[in-house]
Amino acid sequence: MQDTTIATASSSVRERIHSIVFASHQSQRPNAWAWTVMAVLLSNLLITILESVPEYFHVISLWEPGVSMVCGVVLLLDWLARLWSCPDHKDDHGRAISLQPHADYQLSFLGLIDALATLPLFFSLMGHPSQIWFDLEVVFSLFKFSRYVPALELVGSVVRNEKRPLIAALSTLTLLLTINSTCMYLLERNAQPEIFKSIPHTLWWGIVTMTTTGYGDMAPVTLLGRILGGVSMIIGIGMLAIPAGIVATGFSNELQRRELLSTWRLVSHMPLFSALDASRIADIAGMLKRQIIPAGSDIVRRGQFSDSMYFIVDGEVEVDVKPQPVRLRAGQFFGEAGLLENKPRNATVTTLRTTQFLVLGLSEFHELMNRQPDIREKITAVMEQRKAHS
Amino acid sequence: MQDTTIATASSSVRERIHSIVFASHQSQRPNAWAWTVMAVLLSNLLITILESVPEYFHVISLWEPGVSMVCGVVLLLDWLARLWSCPDHKDDHGRAISLQPHADYQLSFLGLIDALATLPLFFSLMGHPSQIWFDLEVVFSLFKFSRYVPALELVGSVVRNEKRPLIAALSTLTLLLTINSTCMYLLERNAQPEIFKSIPHTLWWGIVTMTTTGYGDMAPVTLLGRILGGVSMIIGIGMLAIPAGIVATGFSNELQRRELLSTWRLVSHMPLFSALDASRIADIAGMLKRQIIPAGSDIVRRGQFSDSMYFIVDGEVEVDVKPQPVRLRAGQFFGEAGLLENKPRNATVTTLRTTQFLVLGLSEFHELMNRQPDIREKITAVMEQRKAHS
Amino acid sequence: MQDTTIATASSSVRERIHSIVFASHQSQRPNAWAWTVMAVLLSNLLITILESVPEYFHVISLWEPGVSMVCGVVLLLDWLARLWSCPDHKDDHGRAISLQPHADYQLSFLGLIDALATLPLFFSLMGHPSQIWFDLEVVFSLFKFSRYVPALELVGSVVRNEKRPLIAALSTLTLLLTINSTCMYLLERNAQPEIFKSIPHTLWWGIVTMTTTGYGDMAPVTLLGRILGGVSMIIGIGMLAIPAGIVATGFSNELQRRELLSTWRLVSHMPLFSALDASRIADIAGMLKRQIIPAGSDIVRRGQFSDSMYFIVDGEVEVDVKPQPVRLRAGQFFGEAGLLENKPRNATVTTLRTTQFLVLGLSEFHELMNRQPDIREKITAVMEQRKAHS
Amino acid sequence: MQDTTIATASSSVRERIHSIVFASHQSQRPNAWAWTVMAVLLSNLLITILESVPEYFHVISLWEPGVSMVCGVVLLLDWLARLWSCPDHKDDHGRAISLQPHADYQLSFLGLIDALATLPLFFSLMGHPSQIWFDLEVVFSLFKFSRYVPALELVGSVVRNEKRPLIAALSTLTLLLTINSTCMYLLERNAQPEIFKSIPHTLWWGIVTMTTTGYGDMAPVTLLGRILGGVSMIIGIGMLAIPAGIVATGFSNELQRRELLSTWRLVSHMPLFSALDASRIADIAGMLKRQIIPAGSDIVRRGQFSDSMYFIVDGEVEVDVKPQPVRLRAGQFFGEAGLLENKPRNATVTTLRTTQFLVLGLSEFHELMNRQPDIREKITAVMEQRKAHS
Repeated sequence: MQDTTIATASSSVRERIHSIVFASHQSQRPNAWAWTVMAVLLSNLLITILESVPEYFHVISLWEPGVSMVCGVVLLLDWLARLWSCPDHKDDHGRAISLQPHADYQLSFLGLIDALATLPLFFSLMGHPSQIWFDLEVVFSLFKFSRYVPALELVGSVVRNEKRPLIAALSTLTLLLTINSTCMYLLERNAQPEIFKSIPHTLWWGIVTMTTTGYGDMAPVTLLGRILGGVSMIIGIGMLAIPAGIVATGFSNELQRRELLSTWRLVSHMPLFSALDASRIADIAGMLKRQIIPAGSDIVRRGQFSDSMYFIVDGEVEVDVKPQPVRLRAGQFFGEAGLLENKPRNATVTTLRTTQFLVLGLSEFHELMNRQPDIREKITAVMEQRKAHS
Repeated sequence: MQDTTIATASSSVRERIHSIVFASHQSQRPNAWAWTVMAVLLSNLLITILESVPEYFHVISLWEPGVSMVCGVVLLLDWLARLWSCPDHKDDHGRAISLQPHADYQLSFLGLIDALATLPLFFSLMGHPSQIWFDLEVVFSLFKFSRYVPALELVGSVVRNEKRPLIAALSTLTLLLTINSTCMYLLERNAQPEIFKSIPHTLWWGIVTMTTTGYGDMAPVTLLGRILGGVSMIIGIGMLAIPAGIVATGFSNELQRRELLSTWRLVSHMPLFSALDASRIADIAGMLKRQIIPAGSDIVRRGQFSDSMYFIVDGEVEVDVKPQPVRLRAGQFFGEAGLLENKPRNATVTTLRTTQFLVLGLSEFHELMNRQPDIREKITAVMEQRKAHS
Repeated sequence: MQDTTIATASSSVRERIHSIVFASHQSQRPNAWAWTVMAVLLSNLLITILESVPEYFHVISLWEPGVSMVCGVVLLLDWLARLWSCPDHKDDHGRAISLQPHADYQLSFLGLIDALATLPLFFSLMGHPSQIWFDLEVVFSLFKFSRYVPALELVGSVVRNEKRPLIAALSTLTLLLTINSTCMYLLERNAQPEIFKSIPHTLWWGIVTMTTTGYGDMAPVTLLGRILGGVSMIIGIGMLAIPAGIVATGFSNELQRRELLSTWRLVSHMPLFSALDASRIADIAGMLKRQIIPAGSDIVRRGQFSDSMYFIVDGEVEVDVKPQPVRLRAGQFFGEAGLLENKPRNATVTTLRTTQFLVLGLSEFHELMNRQPDIREKITAVMEQRKAHS
Repeated sequence: MQDTTIATASSSVRERIHSIVFASHQSQRPNAWAWTVMAVLLSNLLITILESVPEYFHVISLWEPGVSMVCGVVLLLDWLARLWSCPDHKDDHGRAISLQPHADYQLSFLGLIDALATLPLFFSLMGHPSQIWFDLEVVFSLFKFSRYVPALELVGSVVRNEKRPLIAALSTLTLLLTINSTCMYLLERNAQPEIFKSIPHTLWWGIVTMTTTGYGDMAPVTLLGRILGGVSMIIGIGMLAIPAGIVATGFSNELQRRELLSTWRLVSHMPLFSALDASRIADIAGMLKRQIIPAGSDIVRRGQFSDSMYFIVDGEVEVDVKPQPVRLRAGQFFGEAGLLENKPRNATVTTLRTTQFLVLGLSEFHELMNRQPDIREKITAVMEQRKAHS
């Protein structure tokens, strides 16, 4: 009986720890612990960077043991907390995701990085055994930092999604690079035996040229070599345009997909739309754009050209109508009158708090009005009612 | 009583001054004052550039005090005029925008630049106190010049709109840059201790390589260093394709949005379309393209292939029909007959003055005819009437 | 009376000359005269290029006077023929385009080039007066050559169409370049006074860096200079992505527009479609793709997957049906059966001559069948009739 | 009689050999023979690359004759097998494609490469006659390797499809390159006679600059030269954006087209869709996306947000519904309930084997439901039936 109680208590502590250390996975804003770890990693990185500068080495080396010790302790705590609390990874229904959570966490890429990033602490305690571990440790810290750069995960998922065309493009590039470099070696080795020493050396020329970096440490001098060089540059530009295009398009599509999904959830919770079936909501979500406006800003000003309509997701705004201003809250909307009647704004609307909107542009508004007659009716009804009151 | 009159007179002078110095914000064409300030800034820039060339220093330094004095006076006047007249910033309904206009103006970026750009005048009057102020002053002039480059504002608004994905892409780039450079430092510091001196030095290599600039002042020589270098170039191309794509797409979208808004306004003032509701106008505005043609040009020539229809926004054209030519003015249209009956042009149309058109292409014309039957009727009616008269 | 006859005879000779020398403007294929001029220009260019190589100078200089003389005579003839026959520029209705054709031609860019390209002939006759004229003359020849590169005209019209956004992007780039370079001069002039000599010198660094060319002849060495350098590279990539995107998109749009226009004309002459009104033809032209196949090729093979339908524009094909093969000519079509019934090809079709097709893809075919029921009927009728015969 | 039997037996052996050596043309996965050839080519390449490094030359040269001999024999076998069995190239109906298969194969690009790649064997047997043949042989091996890089064929077909605009862009680039380089030679030859030696030398500068490679071995120093240099860089970026855009867009379109064709075939074999006519299948194929998931993965999890529906192409999944799990196989589908009723997933679905799906996204699902009412009915019927059973 007592055992169970202890287990439960321990479990509830573990859950709280879990929610603290793994928080950055669920929410967008880093919490205090995340800021601490980031500060520690940054100071660690800064120390390493400055220590590499000969002029600062002596000053920094005085600070280094202390900073290193504090960093080490924080990273050790972070690792142990993650290792202990990882069984609390749950899906949306509160069930554990994995049967062997400790192994799963520890053997994941970030789990290994977490463990390896604690090594300098032990080195500090044991005396400096080898420079190479310190060097690697800086790299581990940087990888650990990647957990706190949300955009990296976004880029990573683009690369994963577009894996096949990227591999196709890069394998073609590799083949062409090898062909070009081998030919260049054959053409230039007699003219510049000291520079185009071997095919591996010429591969370096190849990649420097096909990416149009052009350091200038190796450049062909023979006529045929230069013709091949020019062709390599143009092939390189063409070949690298493929992965560049894939990444850029994939990034923009992935952003749009995420935006659409989060808009979808907001739309399906708006009173005006909540009665609609999924197909209609999908239609509307594609037309709306999220916007966050700080407190005290004028969203629309009386007399301005009416070019959009606003749905309040959360926050509060004030509309300065006569005889006294009206406040609108989450779920309400404004700006429909100007669009429907093609007239300038008839009131100024100001945010009272930081307010999140879904904005419907001019042409999307009219598209929605045409395609969803019942929404049109509801919006018109609210507008008529507002007019009657004023 | 007298006080009010003076206040009003002063206010009316202030308004005129305001409309002169701030004119470039409302209209596209710079006025005489804007040209003066631009000339002053350009001559100031030219003097500074030429003075930096040792060969010209002696010649220029003779001119410099005079030019500098004139420039200073103009910039001082510009600043004072703006500071005094800024309370006249008004919205579309003639109400003041800000409660503390002076502070708002003076503390804005361009307000500070306006003030700082007057410093050389005081230096000229007081003798040369410090070179550094003169150097900064050139930079202030350049920033002040940015007020007169409308495209800069366009690029700025693209960057603001796409702030979030740009930050996402650039923060990922920064992280990868730091990782790459740290690894490169570790790989190359023994082979080239004089070149890869420290991590900050290697960060310079990193940015030069990932942007594929490749000065060649730092380049890896070890095998592992060159492999990492090649990977960095390809990662750099992929990562920088993201912001490049965002900026290029955002620029083209922003241009299109502005074009659409101004076309919208022109369309809603055309007699043919003015009775339509907003939704229809939005539809039509998306199909039309603005075009400005100088006086004396032939818009269409008799016998040419008919591929578009023209609505006159302002200006005047002459159609050379028998028995005598007809003149068309703002609000009228021509070119519909060839499109409707798929025949060559039956008359040549020449501009009498610089004329602005809204042009409707071949496929857009037929789309419009199908989607808006009443417009079709109106256009057909005008065509029949024209035929009857000829 | 006699006068008129002479004038007419002369005019008819002039017309023939006109059609020879200006032919490349109307048709795609260069005629014999165009080939001659191109050969002359190319040999002239080759001579100049080879003469610039010290090793070949002595050999080439023996040939040079002869080649130069022949070239000069051809270019003189070309110029005189153009100058004389330019009044025969006519529009589609055979009326002269210009009232002062000689002046119009001579003062046009290509007219001036034509005249200037004849100068070396006079120099050869008069002895060598000045090297500079010979140098300029090579450049004139190259510009004259541009008349025979049709793609250049395409690129030119893209640049003209997109003039405004290109100027916007490049003026912003210029301003940022000046700001960056001025700042870089201030930051680096003390550290590297020999390299960052003056602001004009640093502008060279700026353009080399912002285009990511990076020759390495000038590179910052101070910390602040390198930070500014890195920022300049990234700004440069972003800013140059705008014109690059505009040109690439404009080029692809312009190609598509031209392709559409020429397809439109072909479609409106096909018997199957000729009864349709312009709106329908526009619809169909957007779906078809032109294709030219040499004689003796199998267009479709019996048993292959049916993925498109073919309309013959000109040329002839043979369909190997039983009991004996059938020949199809301009205006007829084939390949509809497989698409309509979703079955493999039931016959092999081979071109007898070089044949031009309009090809209709899988999804476009079904779109057309749904949107144009009368076309569907006609095609089905032909198919049934063919089945009945076999 | 006996002759025929032998011929048939030989033909059947030949057919088997044909299917082995030409297999990589039909299927995606290389077979054992393809792996052997690839291993031989790679080891050959590796030997050549390492032999070019002076440090390894002595070690490698001991191995070289043996490896070379083995490689030679394999490549000889491959060539002879292809040459002998090429008459078995058949179309989908089992008819021979060519009348002179041996000549056709041997004179094709890859046939020539196959033959030339066997030369080193003869050289090994005859003693080393000439280094140049060995050098060329490495290049032949690399071209032979291209047969096993499927992406190269993809890139090749993009280049073929977009041949005309690519030639247009590159011919313009060539003309501008020649003009720029000739002008640069004229401007710089006096200032740097040792570097800008001749026009051919300056063409090298031109291509290095216009591709923004910028080795720095040649750079202008005069004012006019630098202005022309800056203009060349910007023109180069603009001109090269055209082929880069064409290749990148073409690659993505070609990938999409191939994906669509293979999806089309999969869809037309799904029981749910097989009764539809071709037009409807085309419509549906455009909405679905192929996905291959390894065994033991959870496709959807109970309680998750429903964002797509899955059709099983091949493989098997288990749905953990009560009272006992259900297995679904090729041709069946799941995930429709959550989408239709906008509710979270009501069961977890796990792959039992590697399973291939066609996935229908959220908005595409609702589009399909609206446009194809009979599919909607069928899907709803299955859903109701499933509910009744559970």
